[in-house]
Amino acid sequence: MVEGYKSVVEFVNAAYQVDAIYHTSEIAPKMMNLSRKINFQEISLTDLEKISSLKTPQDVIGLIKIPKWPRLNYNLLKNKFSLVLDGVQDPGNMGTIIRTADWFGITDIICSDDTVDVYNPKVVQATMGSLARVNVHYGDLMTIIPEIKLPLFGAMLDGENIYNTNFGREGLLAMGNEGNGLRPEIQQLINKTVTIPRIGYAESLNVAIATAILCSEIKRNSFK
Amino acid sequence: MVEGYKSVVEFVNAAYQVDAIYHTSEIAPKMMNLSRKINFQEISLTDLEKISSLKTPQDVIGLIKIPKWPRLNYNLLKNKFSLVLDGVQDPGNMGTIIRTADWFGITDIICSDDTVDVYNPKVVQATMGSLARVNVHYGDLMTIIPEIKLPLFGAMLDGENIYNTNFGREGLLAMGNEGNGLRPEIQQLINKTVTIPRIGYAESLNVAIATAILCSEIKRNSFK
Repeated sequence: MVEGYKSVVEFVNAAYQVDAIYHTSEIAPKMMNLSRKINFQEISLTDLEKISSLKTPQDVIGLIKIPKWPRLNYNLLKNKFSLVLDGVQDPGNMGTIIRTADWFGITDIICSDDTVDVYNPKVVQATMGSLARVNVHYGDLMTIIPEIKLPLFGAMLDGENIYNTNFGREGLLAMGNEGNGLRPEIQQLINKTVTIPRIGYAESLNVAIATAILCSEIKRNSFK
Repeated sequence: MVEGYKSVVEFVNAAYQVDAIYHTSEIAPKMMNLSRKINFQEISLTDLEKISSLKTPQDVIGLIKIPKWPRLNYNLLKNKFSLVLDGVQDPGNMGTIIRTADWFGITDIICSDDTVDVYNPKVVQATMGSLARVNVHYGDLMTIIPEIKLPLFGAMLDGENIYNTNFGREGLLAMGNEGNGLRPEIQQLINKTVTIPRIGYAESLNVAIATAILCSEIKRNSFK
């Protein structure tokens, strides 16, 4: 379920299979321009509010078919950076990480099986349409990471200063659960532990914030 | 209202006036170690759940006196960076920005009067205790910014690449509203417009994410 005109358009443009689009009468002309092949359903605002998962519903809700992802082809991860999420739980964080990944041109995110479901409506909402462009894979990280054969960077509180780290041209960046960080067994697989140095006093950074700062550091060399 | 043991402790340690601390019996021994002078109230979990603003209430709620801030002394902003928030609306974003500022040693945030109330329980929660250490001022930005007499950096979609920007040792970083960005009149006051370069396709970044990436860039030179 995708809510809001802009987000629905992202999925339509990315050629996802659209089962139906429910919309109010006000936005009907705009919807019709989108495509002729879609099953549009004009409904009342009252009905739309009943379906919506948002406190302030938008005027369009799309029902998008969840794609059957092919098995992750590890060769496609070479020469670039991908994210590894180990038990991220908060839907807002997950969605924001996907949106940030999309901004920085990161196309693949590999999640432990206990990471929040990427199709949770709150996750979808927080991605602001970026879910249409970022591939999110789930699986057993202990099996997958060694098979990928790329350097694994892990964000921890006692690693190398990120501002001095040479991230190179390819790799995986692992981010842990909001409360507990990376699991010990994942930590064992890390090739380089990195840390965002602290100047002030906050005990930690939000995981989506830390991911974004690291993505920026990893990508900044492409702009120099 | 501050929820959760860790956050309440931050306010107690920062010498805020604590009107009362409501807690369950399980955590009573831990609370007693905190201070003898506080008005502790042991209550049932059921009552605590009624008071709480959280879906999953924690076992401690503190009632902290909102301090009467003295008028902002502009001289105290010299030789450092402070944030300016122009109409940030989402409590989660606001709280996360305060937590991130605290991490990077930024002690002052100046907000337009229509920025979300920093004492909104959702903001307080998202700061994870950092609100106890970061000074959040409200006022008319059009009056305040010129009086501060520091370079104003503004985050926009068409500014200088942040990776090439020399932020210097002091200044203000202005971040705008989630949907609309910085108001045109604030844009007029900007000395340098900066942009986080985009590699992928997301239309924008979340404002708390963009703030964090900029704070990291501003502070990274202190670590070189």
